[in-house]
Amino acid sequence: MEYLQQSFSVKFEYKVFFTSGLFELANTGINDFLQADSTSASVKKILFVVDEDVLKATPHLADKIRSYFAIHTAAQLIPEIVLMPGGETVKIDESHFSKMLDVIHQYAIDRHSYVAAIGGGSLLDMVGYAAAVSHRGVKHIRIPTTVLSQNDSGVGVKNSINYFGKKNFLGTFVPPVAVFNDDQFLLTLSDRDYRSGIAEAIKVSLIKDATFFEWLERNTDALVARDMDTMKYLIKRCAELHLNHIAGLDPFEKGSSRPLDFGHWSAHKLEQLTNFKVLHGEAVAMGIALDTVYSNLSGRLTIAETRRVINLIKKIGFEITHPFLEVSGKDSPILIGLQEFREHLGGELTIMLLEQIGVGVEVHEMDAQLIKQAGDALRGEYAGVSVG
Amino acid sequence: MEYLQQSFSVKFEYKVFFTSGLFELANTGINDFLQADSTSASVKKILFVVDEDVLKATPHLADKIRSYFAIHTAAQLIPEIVLMPGGETVKIDESHFSKMLDVIHQYAIDRHSYVAAIGGGSLLDMVGYAAAVSHRGVKHIRIPTTVLSQNDSGVGVKNSINYFGKKNFLGTFVPPVAVFNDDQFLLTLSDRDYRSGIAEAIKVSLIKDATFFEWLERNTDALVARDMDTMKYLIKRCAELHLNHIAGLDPFEKGSSRPLDFGHWSAHKLEQLTNFKVLHGEAVAMGIALDTVYSNLSGRLTIAETRRVINLIKKIGFEITHPFLEVSGKDSPILIGLQEFREHLGGELTIMLLEQIGVGVEVHEMDAQLIKQAGDALRGEYAGVSVG
Ligand SMILES: NC(=O)c1ccc[n+]([C@@H]2O[C@H](COP(=O)([O-])OP(=O)(O)OC[C@H]3O[C@@H](n4cnc5c(N)ncnc54)[C@H](O)[C@@H]3O)[C@@H](O)[C@H]2O)c1
Ligand SMILES: NC(=O)c1ccc[n+]([C@@H]2O[C@H](COP(=O)([O-])OP(=O)(O)OC[C@H]3O[C@@H](n4cnc5c(N)ncnc54)[C@H](O)[C@@H]3O)[C@@H](O)[C@H]2O)c1
Ligand SMILES: [Zn+2]
Ligand SMILES: [Zn+2]
Repeated sequence: MEYLQQSFSVKFEYKVFFTSGLFELANTGINDFLQADSTSASVKKILFVVDEDVLKATPHLADKIRSYFAIHTAAQLIPEIVLMPGGETVKIDESHFSKMLDVIHQYAIDRHSYVAAIGGGSLLDMVGYAAAVSHRGVKHIRIPTTVLSQNDSGVGVKNSINYFGKKNFLGTFVPPVAVFNDDQFLLTLSDRDYRSGIAEAIKVSLIKDATFFEWLERNTDALVARDMDTMKYLIKRCAELHLNHIAGLDPFEKGSSRPLDFGHWSAHKLEQLTNFKVLHGEAVAMGIALDTVYSNLSGRLTIAETRRVINLIKKIGFEITHPFLEVSGKDSPILIGLQEFREHLGGELTIMLLEQIGVGVEVHEMDAQLIKQAGDALRGEYAGVSVG
Repeated sequence: MEYLQQSFSVKFEYKVFFTSGLFELANTGINDFLQADSTSASVKKILFVVDEDVLKATPHLADKIRSYFAIHTAAQLIPEIVLMPGGETVKIDESHFSKMLDVIHQYAIDRHSYVAAIGGGSLLDMVGYAAAVSHRGVKHIRIPTTVLSQNDSGVGVKNSINYFGKKNFLGTFVPPVAVFNDDQFLLTLSDRDYRSGIAEAIKVSLIKDATFFEWLERNTDALVARDMDTMKYLIKRCAELHLNHIAGLDPFEKGSSRPLDFGHWSAHKLEQLTNFKVLHGEAVAMGIALDTVYSNLSGRLTIAETRRVINLIKKIGFEITHPFLEVSGKDSPILIGLQEFREHLGGELTIMLLEQIGVGVEVHEMDAQLIKQAGDALRGEYAGVSVG
């Protein structure tokens, strides 16, 4: 059959900035960015959307933003600061997405103007999706306020909302134009949300970087004590490993391989089963524990390294398993979750396991009996591992 | 401010096939494509969505598709052939977009499966958008059935629906995985729809390829007589010029420059003012006439070349102007349309004009008085130009 061949590459570039006090008047970071980032000679507008819990926790945030842009004028601030609930609800209830389209339309945000979102990963996912599809893409700035969004979800290229009761059913691969990680936001996080994000650092260290894993082992106490310099290093190294991974083989995930989803197949199911009562990072910590012990039981990972992983997870303060992860028969929810993950990938199952700390290996099947044994071990012998 | 730099490129590739009788059992084209295009070891599903007018006009189309995939089994056909209205309404009324999400969900179309759309540019735009955002992108095959969609809209990288009463308010830049141009569909087009698509060929010849313009001048009679070989050449050459343009500087239109929108600023407004009674190509033909005469009056294009352009447009059978394009004062709709186009681009106006046939030039302002004069000329002296 006759044909014309189309072929082109599109380059995507953005910076992930690290700062402290983004809207202090003396901090010219975001204004400098807006000044330098110009694709048109026209006046650029900037519309802020803020997570309600962040606004409550951060005194005078809206006023600070307004004062900042009164002095720094690289972009014209839309005076209304749009408020949205934080947490999964902003992705579940479609009215928030509709509201985002409304304000983008109302304030005539165009393809050379900005929608800046301040909040956790949930809010960033929803606002990023609305920005990506309005006018086929208005510019999106992410200002993540949780550990998880600063070290993982906020620095990547994905956005989404839930639909048909399915997590992330709608979404796109569209990078932000910039990410600003401001450590000051972390001060007001609950201990649970603070801890939750550390799971992604453990995950990425296990599949990519043994040295980082050892650093995590050495710095557990400081992390638990919420020492800021330690957390800043964790976030930066974790974000860097994520960025490098994305820039690698398959940024828009055209294949079935999802190395960064290590520990995630069971975590997704657990979040859903508990109606998001178990946080993403908490579920990921249990998922890592499960797949680590499975790696050992299936003859891939040594028992000594397995114990180190479980020990780190526990020392950080995570649970290592959950009743819903138990395999009691063929219809156990967790086995159904495995089946759903297979469907999500498009038929061929691809699961990351561990060969060594820092070295992952992909497999295309998992044995139900071994998953059961791994769960039993986590409720049995590993429940007692020293957390000294 | 400290930062990490992210930078990567994503390669996009697809073929635009030319065929006759895509679902004849002996035609292995689409099956060969599905066989070769594999990103997973799993079974691939294919869901067809068909323009109702195309289905009515093409006897046994649904049966043919079913018989084809009963024998050619590179993908598993979803037995339901989804029907959607053709024309702008499928982009205006959101229920059609919702229905697309429903069927993608219902039939568990995943990122390694296909949504194939058969229809005009309107249907392809809507289905392409639904495919692009479901699971962050399921594979989309376009089977355009109008001249316009085979030579222009269907071969490109954009998709969209209308929203807030605004054309293409929601959409993405996501290329199809393949396009199949089947000349047999063109046989059932109305003369108006057939002619309408020729406007895009005139447009692209004027800004890119004087030789193609001369070919159009020589082949006007054959085009008007709907000679198939002549139309096949027109579509292929026009599609090729479009593909080359997209593969050039700015595939996802990050800048303000839109050379392929020559003649389109007034056309968009005219379509809207007439509630899409004036077809896209008909409006583009008038828009080309206006910007061509403007190019002459502003001292860019010779009078001889201007006459050749107007003459070709008339010989093809297009009107060269419309009462709504008349400038009678500052608030004339067409001047408001110019303002809206400026906003759509993000503040800085960028309009393509002609320096010569085959050579465009971008300008950043247009003079209202000259627009008025150009319109007067189209209603006056050019109304009488020979169409011999
Ligand atoms: N796009 C991706 O690649 C990707 C990757 C991983 C996870 N995610 C998504 O991210 C979401 C989870 O994000 P998250 O863990 O950041 O949680 P979250 O956004 O759900 O926020 C958790 C809670 O903390 C509050 N909060 C946020 N920042 C705060 C602050 N500085 N002070 C006080 N309270 C604050 C929020 O309002 C919310 O109530 C999930 O929907 C998950 O699917 C996306
Ligand atoms: N995505 C892009 O880059 C791009 C570019 C240009 C135009 N467009 C869009 O394309 C749309 C116009 O597309 P179009 O000109 O193909 O018209 P259309 O899709 O609106 O179809 C016109 C009419 O012809 C019918 N029809 C289609 N094929 C037929 C056939 N083979 N036989 C009989 N009837 C048939 C349709 O049902 C409809 O009633 C507009 O919405 C325009 O905005 C998109
Ligand atoms: Zn995660
Ligand atoms: Zn057009």
